[in-house]
Parts: sequence; structure tokens; C-alpha cells
Amino acid sequence: MMILTRPILEINFENILANYKTLQKIAPKAIAAAVVKDDAYGIGAGKVAEMLYQKAGCRTFFVAHGVEGERIRPCVPEAEIFVLQGIGEDSIESFKKAHLIPVIGSPKMLEFWKQNKISGIKPMINIETGLNRLGFRENELESLSDDDRKEFGWVMSHLACGDEKDHFMNEHQLSNFKRLKTKYFPELPASLSASDGTFLGAEFQFQMVRLGAAMYGINTAPYRENQMQNVVKVLAPVLQIADLPKGDFVGYSATYRATSQRKIAIVSIGYGDGIPRALSNVGKVFFPRGERLFEARIIGRLSMDNIICDISDVPEVETGEMAHIIDDFYTLDDMGRDSGTIGYEIISRIGKNTRYIRREKF
Amino acid sequence: MMILTRPILEINFENILANYKTLQKIAPKAIAAAVVKDDAYGIGAGKVAEMLYQKAGCRTFFVAHGVEGERIRPCVPEAEIFVLQGIGEDSIESFKKAHLIPVIGSPKMLEFWKQNKISGIKPMINIETGLNRLGFRENELESLSDDDRKEFGWVMSHLACGDEKDHFMNEHQLSNFKRLKTKYFPELPASLSASDGTFLGAEFQFQMVRLGAAMYGINTAPYRENQMQNVVKVLAPVLQIADLPKGDFVGYSATYRATSQRKIAIVSIGYGDGIPRALSNVGKVFFPRGERLFEARIIGRLSMDNIICDISDVPEVETGEMAHIIDDFYTLDDMGRDSGTIGYEIISRIGKNTRYIRREKF
Repeated sequence: MMILTRPILEINFENILANYKTLQKIAPKAIAAAVVKDDAYGIGAGKVAEMLYQKAGCRTFFVAHGVEGERIRPCVPEAEIFVLQGIGEDSIESFKKAHLIPVIGSPKMLEFWKQNKISGIKPMINIETGLNRLGFRENELESLSDDDRKEFGWVMSHLACGDEKDHFMNEHQLSNFKRLKTKYFPELPASLSASDGTFLGAEFQFQMVRLGAAMYGINTAPYRENQMQNVVKVLAPVLQIADLPKGDFVGYSATYRATSQRKIAIVSIGYGDGIPRALSNVGKVFFPRGERLFEARIIGRLSMDNIICDISDVPEVETGEMAHIIDDFYTLDDMGRDSGTIGYEIISRIGKNTRYIRREKF
Repeated sequence: MMILTRPILEINFENILANYKTLQKIAPKAIAAAVVKDDAYGIGAGKVAEMLYQKAGCRTFFVAHGVEGERIRPCVPEAEIFVLQGIGEDSIESFKKAHLIPVIGSPKMLEFWKQNKISGIKPMINIETGLNRLGFRENELESLSDDDRKEFGWVMSHLACGDEKDHFMNEHQLSNFKRLKTKYFPELPASLSASDGTFLGAEFQFQMVRLGAAMYGINTAPYRENQMQNVVKVLAPVLQIADLPKGDFVGYSATYRATSQRKIAIVSIGYGDGIPRALSNVGKVFFPRGERLFEARIIGRLSMDNIICDISDVPEVETGEMAHIIDDFYTLDDMGRDSGTIGYEIISRIGKNTRYIRREKF
């Protein structure tokens, strides 16, 4: 008999490294920049950056915010760190301290930069090609002076639909990007693609690709089998096994009712650990039995600390057994799909929770 | 002209304290225990516990996991700390170090406790009355020996539908609880209700209420206006303003298309800051203008770092202005509803992100 209460989060850093190297091979002529924003999608930006720096020779990193760049600087002393959200009053100190490179996406931010330049830094310019998010619009590019254009060391844009191979937006953005780059920044090196665009082929890779989601195991080319190794596993202990009488309700707001006598397990993990509440009555947890994998459907609402699942058809579940919540056979992408979102949001939630027993494989 | 890049999270600890005191008055005869599990729903368990301990004389706290109890112990040296998920091999050291009190919900955990007792600690027993989550079922209560029953210092259960005033489950669980308590633990003090049940009246309050969500400003009695003060505000800067041409698409997967020329703002916050991606094309952000409050609809998909919103009808938005994401006029509950979940899950996500400029009001 075993009683366990805490969920386990396993991060396979070896697989992050392997994924990074696989991606390097897919874009052999481009700089393989590592995107470690949002604390490396919740995994831990310092550890990811340091590993890639030391074991893969990565010297180019992207974060979203200046403060994130400042945090990883000690882990990657000689690297270039680009900051996607750019520079402002509330981040300039981080840029100075950590020698960060802003990505500048608007004329107003360029004005700010010109009044607050940091010597030795040449920003990257972000140009808008179809996503309609951050970036210089064409009329704004036209208004740049020659001197303005000389401020920059790189030109980038970002794809809207890079995960859909044949989406018309890809060619549309590619041709926009080539045209604008040629017209306004003919001599600058360029970067158009994140992970998803990297898989679209050499034409989309230019001089740098920005690798985030795929490195963390997410399938950013979902029109075919995932070429990446899974990075995240989540396990949680069965805290209690009980009979559920026919006609009984389960969980908050009594959203599940048993139409026959069932056997249930209460598993010690919930949305307080980053597992989406949207999996209520929809998701499943797993119990491997030798070669076979048994699914136990989540019944009733997920609560902050617990999942209730139906184990009626799973052989010999025991208290203390670890249910598999995320694994090689049920990945971040799978959980994203089942909860109406994407793997990116799942991983961004999970790693930030501090109740996990955290195991890291290097 | 102003450029800002980072979102702001404001936590009003004064209001947590005020809410706690309001709840005390609603249950004047019961111990008002403070639930600070899940890092006080993401707000910071140590700070919340310490404030309630020092400023409100709170001496009873609940966490979910032993490790959470261990973390808050230095902040509440003389308090009782109950652990809802109970005790197991993976948490026993925390119980010993921090003198925690397990809530025991199954015969197997009771066995574990009897083999691993900590002197001076009398556990709480959790009995199942209709939620079908953790707790002793009636047949398991029947099997307890007299000695077993003497192990416990408190008896508790938990409501499934306490936020629905007239739900039949409330009376059903209340009568189950009274009957089982009278039969098996006639002399023990009892606790049935969390925040929601506290509002159901004196009959539901017994000797202790367990106050979590309401203390953090969530309306746990949504059949009437919220009596709690709002605790959380989230603001995020407008990073860029742009024209959106008629026919253009917005965001990933091009899920929004402009049917007329629009004006958009790119706001520097996203699901990487805990704002649900489910708000894509559904949610809104706010721009107060004197007495008037203008809504800007979120268009396209939320991304990890940015929200794009339609400001065509908002007067004079400027770069650097802070958009209101969560505020007194659009609370955790409101965002929960708009994203298909509950305020509990929203708050549990937001506070764990470290890119916010954090402001705390004591």
C-alpha cells in the first residue's frame, strides 16, 4: 500500500537539445535562434538557454520582454539576446544592464530608440506582412529616412499561418516580405520564420529561424507526424479509489451523473497545477498496462486540486499509482486539442506551478 | 509620447483583509479559516497568510499540499495548518518539519497515518456527502473502530453546489453531513462549507468555515450582487496603434477578417501572462474616458505575448496608454465567464507569471 499526494512534472532537456539539433538540420544555412520567452514556455528559460549555449553552441536567443533578457543574461554571457516586444521606459534599464537588442516594430518605438540609443547595439526591425500584429506598416517604412534605415542590423517578420502548409497566407507573406526587404533593407540579413515556417522549406528560412514551440516538442507542422521528441511528462497519484453508485452526481455543479454503478479514482492534480478546467467531462487520464494503454475518462468538473476519472474498465488500479496526464502517447498537443486550445498554452501554464515534484533529465 | 512594454498586476491586499472581515461577520460563530492553497490562488500564500495572521488574528489555514504548508509555516508560526490532500510518503517530511495537520479522506490514508503518526497532531476526517471526490464513504465509516474514530480532532465535508442557493444538493449534503457526523463523530467540531456554503446561512457554518475564493474577490454567491471587494487588477500597455485595411486578416490562422477599415491596438499581454487564449475573438479590453468606459473587442487569436483589439470606436487611444484587462468593472468572474470557465481558474493562472510589474497594496 502506498499513499502519494503530489503530482510530478518531468522535463526532458535532452529532448529539447535533440529537437534543436533536428531543427538546425532542417534549416542548415540559417542561424538557429532559440526562443526562450515566457520563461521558455514555462520550462525555465535560464536552464534551456544555458544548455543550448553550452551544448549546442547557440549564440542567438529571443525573449519577449527586457526583464526576461536580463534574467537569462548570466546563463549566456556571449550571446545576442533579441527582445520581441521591444524597448520602452519600463524596460530600458534591463537593456542597458544586459546588453539586449530590441526588436522595433513601430515608428514611435523607433523615436524612443533614437532618443535612448545604447552604444554598440543595432536593433532588428519588425515589418508587418499580413499578421496585423506588431511591425512597421508599408506607409511607415516609406517614411523612414536613410539614417533611420541605417539604425537596423536585422529585418524580420512573422507568419500568421505557418502551421498550415498550403495556406495562401504563407506565399502572400513571403512575397510581401521579399518585396519590402528588397525595397527598404536590401543589405540586411533577414528572418521570417518561427518553428512553423522553418518546416515550409528553404525559401522561408532566410538568414535566421526563430525556434520555440517545436524545440519544446510541439508539432508546428501538424499536417504530418511530429518530427520532434516529447519534452514534457506529467504524472499524478491516485489518491483514492471509490465506488460511484448509480444515480450519484460527481463534482462541482453536479455536471456528471452515473447511469450505472461505476468505479472512480480521485487523482491529485487540477487546474491549480495548470491542467485546463476545460477538460471537465471531456479529457482523459491514462493507465499503461504492459503493451496496452487504458484510458480513464475525466468525469465531472476538474477542481483546483483534483481530477475524478472513471476507472471501471481499467484493470487493477491501486491507490498510490501514478496516472499519466501528459506523456509521449498523449502530448501537449493532444491535451491542447481536447481542451479547445493549443499545446503552446498548455505548456505555458504547467511549468509555472510550484506544487509539482520536478524532475529534469539532462 | 510614451513607450511601455510590460503588463502590470495589482493585488489589493487591503481588500483581501476587508473581504475576510466581511466573511467573519457572515459566520460570526464559526472559526474563519483562510484557504491559501495553490499559492493563495496564485496571489502569494506567504503574504496572504502573514497579513491575515497579523492583522486579523487568523490562526487557522488550509493548503492543498504538505509542501504548501511548509512554505507558509514561517509566516504563521502559531497557526494550525490543515492539508486538504492529506499525507503520504511524498509529503510526510513537510508535515513533521512544519507541524501540519492532515485531512484524511480514505481508509488507506488512515492506515498510513496510523503507521506514521506525528505526536501532538490530531487529523481532520473528510467524509463524503455527495461531491464524490475525496472523503470516507459511509460503508468505510462503518468499518472504523472506536480507536480509529478517536484519532480525529475535526470532521469536514465539502459542498458540490454551494454557489446555487436553491440547488437540491445543498440540503441533501447538509442532511447527509449531519446524520453521519451525529452517528460517527458526535463530539467533534465540524466544518462543511467553503466560501459558497458560508453564504447559505448559519445552518451550513458549523464550527468552522473555510474561506478561499470569496476572500480573493470572487463572487461565490452569484445569485446576487457580489459583496466582496475586487482584489485583482491587470493593466497592459498599448504597444502600437495601426490601421487595419478592409479585407485584411488578423492574428494566427487568420481567424478574423476586417469587413471595413478599422483601427487596432496591439496590447502587450497574452496567454503567456495567464490571460486565457479562449478570449480570442470573444473577449474585450477596456479604456476608461472620464465617466465613460469604452470596450475594445479582442480580434483574432490571442498570442503568447499580445492581444490585438479593435479601437475604432474608442476616442484618442495613445501608444503607451494602459488598457484595462481586469478591473473593478470587469472582474475575474467576468473574464471567467467570457472565456468559458470561472474566476477561480483565471486568478490561479495570472499571479504565477513573472513578467508582470507587480504592485501590491497593503
